[in-house]
Amino acid sequence: MAHFPLNAWYAAAYDVELKRVLLPRTICNRKMVFYRLQDGSPAALEDACWHRLLPLSMGRLDGDEVVCGYHGLVFNAEGRCTHMPSQETLNPSACVRSYPVVERHRFIWVWPGDASLADPALIPDLHWNDSPGWTGDGKMIRVACDYRLVVDNLMDLTHETFVHGSSIGDRAVAEAPFVATHGDRFATVTRWMEGITPPPFWAGQIRHARGYAGPVDRWQIIRFEAPCTVTIDVGVAVAGTGAPPSGDNPGDRSQGVNGFVLNTITPETDRSCHYFWAFARNYCLNEQRITHELREGVAGIFREDEAVLEAQQRAIDEHPDHQFYNLNIDAGSMWARKLIDRLVAAEAPAPGPRTIPLRPAA
Amino acid sequence: MAHFPLNAWYAAAYDVELKRVLLPRTICNRKMVFYRLQDGSPAALEDACWHRLLPLSMGRLDGDEVVCGYHGLVFNAEGRCTHMPSQETLNPSACVRSYPVVERHRFIWVWPGDASLADPALIPDLHWNDSPGWTGDGKMIRVACDYRLVVDNLMDLTHETFVHGSSIGDRAVAEAPFVATHGDRFATVTRWMEGITPPPFWAGQIRHARGYAGPVDRWQIIRFEAPCTVTIDVGVAVAGTGAPPSGDNPGDRSQGVNGFVLNTITPETDRSCHYFWAFARNYCLNEQRITHELREGVAGIFREDEAVLEAQQRAIDEHPDHQFYNLNIDAGSMWARKLIDRLVAAEAPAPGPRTIPLRPAA
Amino acid sequence: MAHFPLNAWYAAAYDVELKRVLLPRTICNRKMVFYRLQDGSPAALEDACWHRLLPLSMGRLDGDEVVCGYHGLVFNAEGRCTHMPSQETLNPSACVRSYPVVERHRFIWVWPGDASLADPALIPDLHWNDSPGWTGDGKMIRVACDYRLVVDNLMDLTHETFVHGSSIGDRAVAEAPFVATHGDRFATVTRWMEGITPPPFWAGQIRHARGYAGPVDRWQIIRFEAPCTVTIDVGVAVAGTGAPPSGDNPGDRSQGVNGFVLNTITPETDRSCHYFWAFARNYCLNEQRITHELREGVAGIFREDEAVLEAQQRAIDEHPDHQFYNLNIDAGSMWARKLIDRLVAAEAPAPGPRTIPLRPAA
Repeated sequence: MAHFPLNAWYAAAYDVELKRVLLPRTICNRKMVFYRLQDGSPAALEDACWHRLLPLSMGRLDGDEVVCGYHGLVFNAEGRCTHMPSQETLNPSACVRSYPVVERHRFIWVWPGDASLADPALIPDLHWNDSPGWTGDGKMIRVACDYRLVVDNLMDLTHETFVHGSSIGDRAVAEAPFVATHGDRFATVTRWMEGITPPPFWAGQIRHARGYAGPVDRWQIIRFEAPCTVTIDVGVAVAGTGAPPSGDNPGDRSQGVNGFVLNTITPETDRSCHYFWAFARNYCLNEQRITHELREGVAGIFREDEAVLEAQQRAIDEHPDHQFYNLNIDAGSMWARKLIDRLVAAEAPAPGPRTIPLRPAA
Repeated sequence: MAHFPLNAWYAAAYDVELKRVLLPRTICNRKMVFYRLQDGSPAALEDACWHRLLPLSMGRLDGDEVVCGYHGLVFNAEGRCTHMPSQETLNPSACVRSYPVVERHRFIWVWPGDASLADPALIPDLHWNDSPGWTGDGKMIRVACDYRLVVDNLMDLTHETFVHGSSIGDRAVAEAPFVATHGDRFATVTRWMEGITPPPFWAGQIRHARGYAGPVDRWQIIRFEAPCTVTIDVGVAVAGTGAPPSGDNPGDRSQGVNGFVLNTITPETDRSCHYFWAFARNYCLNEQRITHELREGVAGIFREDEAVLEAQQRAIDEHPDHQFYNLNIDAGSMWARKLIDRLVAAEAPAPGPRTIPLRPAA
Repeated sequence: MAHFPLNAWYAAAYDVELKRVLLPRTICNRKMVFYRLQDGSPAALEDACWHRLLPLSMGRLDGDEVVCGYHGLVFNAEGRCTHMPSQETLNPSACVRSYPVVERHRFIWVWPGDASLADPALIPDLHWNDSPGWTGDGKMIRVACDYRLVVDNLMDLTHETFVHGSSIGDRAVAEAPFVATHGDRFATVTRWMEGITPPPFWAGQIRHARGYAGPVDRWQIIRFEAPCTVTIDVGVAVAGTGAPPSGDNPGDRSQGVNGFVLNTITPETDRSCHYFWAFARNYCLNEQRITHELREGVAGIFREDEAVLEAQQRAIDEHPDHQFYNLNIDAGSMWARKLIDRLVAAEAPAPGPRTIPLRPAA
């Protein structure tokens, strides 16, 4: 079974990465070349010339068209060949695949599957990344593991205690109860830690933003959207000021600081991924120093994850038939995996009528 | 089907590479060790000791014999073992394969196939490399691609426009008509560009050699000799002085400058090759500065090809079942491929009588 | 057939390598993590967490237990899980494999096979490494070859002449006769070279220890213990003073210098090994300078072997079906191989009753 659905929007690049230059990138095992048209909109083509397979990304951009760097065949943004050397007539089959591509919420999204199904309404909601009232920044890293291991990692923040003990982890996270729920396309894990001493990261944030040093109510609300986007609503409020929701009461976070960790993890190959993340906050909006500090701080945390994830992938490759046992803490990632599997299964070819091999009578 | 015939002469080294030292080199997937005998003539043995397979090239030369670097077995230039440690009697089977080897036109040629067919008359004609009236020099590079991709590259110089635009390429090459012909062992592609402004490389040559700056008639006459040698007769003459041949008239190149690009590409493995080349000219014979400049200039051009060829090989490996379409410009390389395929097919074992599997009656 | 038996003691580390820190090491294709308990005794666990396979060596030591670096599962030295995050009840299946491990003669020995068979009496005798009357030191190197190639190398010291000509090798070794004997678990090769000029290494030793410069009787008594330990009793004595044994006379080495080269070669994978060696001597016991010089001198000799052994492994991999011929000098290694093969065969699963495939009558 495939590891990922093809009929989905995947982040291919940060907005600032894409310029009037050919950018090669592999998405879901497909080599693609990305560039901006003269009007600034993004384009994506298969990164292999129709003629001799040379990556088009080794060629050059000419207006809105790409010129192959070997024999000079020219392709437009729809992938159609518009020029061949030394001949007048163009072979009508001469084209490369073009992919639906949309820029939204600071990412360039590409749809590797059936273009007729590529509805922009299906792009994951990461509006915190470019909305008024929120500020932040992020990065992309390449991780040498199946993207689902990153999803597992994000769906269970227990690991913060053991992997990120010096910044955001403490025993409260590993010990606090949590609630896991799910729908058709979403799965959530909610954890409240009330009246705790905040870990170093959050102690610093609430002291800086609100001049407060003392116990807090801390929350982590993880929301997975299939196949590979995870937003985490995180924060702390002055303990006992009503931040936790209760029944119909949504809770009052006005005495707190709130951030969203935005994660979308694009399969590069079966065993590697492009991990895009950002941290957006709703406090101290104009302090660029905090943006810088948060970005680099979170980047350090994700480097700790990277070492663990790549070691885990190597161990899985060495134990191809290993049966995994699940713990209570795995409830969120189990639901995420189920939702991914459903998307993948929906794309599998329908089984044909069963063929019964016949043997002629002796 | 194999990629190359074994019954052929392949360049294994430049003359200056071979000394009284053991030189390991892989030719057509066969590991060989080359050296010069005391009389200066070349020798080639299988590079694996009969006893424990240690490469003989890790041993040392003793007179005309090779001493293995592990247990001291000694082999003569015919591959026969002449000494074993701690025993008087030599095992009669103790030998390594020796290969026919000939030095000609500044290359050491080896025949990897059936030694009884190794006729020196079949060595490709590269006499420009060491003949009076011609001067020049060359290099060897290792390219991580099937040697046939280099042949394709040389049989269609349209790519000069796109890969070598800063030196020898311009739109005239991509747009000029050409004529492709072939025989049993040869294929040629002839292109004349008459009355053109010369590209930077040739403008410099004719200005220096003849003090001429103006339009030229330019020629490229590519001649492939199966399986892997390509000579290219190149040059420019003052426009309109009769350089192009016509009917029985061979043309008058006396108002021009003429060079031969000599190329012979030896398969190292199925996906790598040793590419030997030289550039010989018939003008300014005593100007060593020009020899140096041409050698380094052509080396820079071939480095541009190397990047394209290795990317193309990687793309082919990623698309193992790709069906390639051919353009008009591919006529020469298509003939070259056909001549190679014929040589390979001629070496394939003859199919035996067809075996009909029988099933005993029930 | 496997390359090595599992029911055997293998050296996993030098004593000084093992501290109160997690040490990952692969033994016989099994990833293990080694550490010392609080009482100083060694422990060895499977290096993969029961939960998500993360190497336990990426976690940390807590008392006598190991804490996984991902989700904090805790395992004791017997491999049983003693703590899981966020849950009270431990899954009874939660454990990793623990391996029998013993410290003796300056090595940490591990038994990768059936723990119930792990009898410490079977640990190879390397007492010279920590006995009164002997002094010395050693190293571990990783060699990218099947451990049996190292055994072959040690069982035939003819190669000293060709690989180590500048130190311990000379033509006397290659030319001297030798005697090979064997038992059920041992094989020996004995070579005496009487009245010879000593090679540089031994000339230096006997001059320093006894102020003697002149002809010597030299011995090499190689003793293989299956599957992978080789001790070599080496030395020289003043020629003609009765060192060689004869009939019931064990010989008189009192006018000589004697060393033991201790070698035990642990398979890491099918094509790599950990090669532990030491050189112990019974003269100039208090001269630390000699210990240092011998250790570095022998290390240089083994680096020469390493280059040969790794080249041999590459050649074997390139000739998977090669049939090897044996020379007289291979008598010792042939016996060693037979003893190894017997141990491996004894572990192969017994063949079940032969299944005859039935075909229903037509």
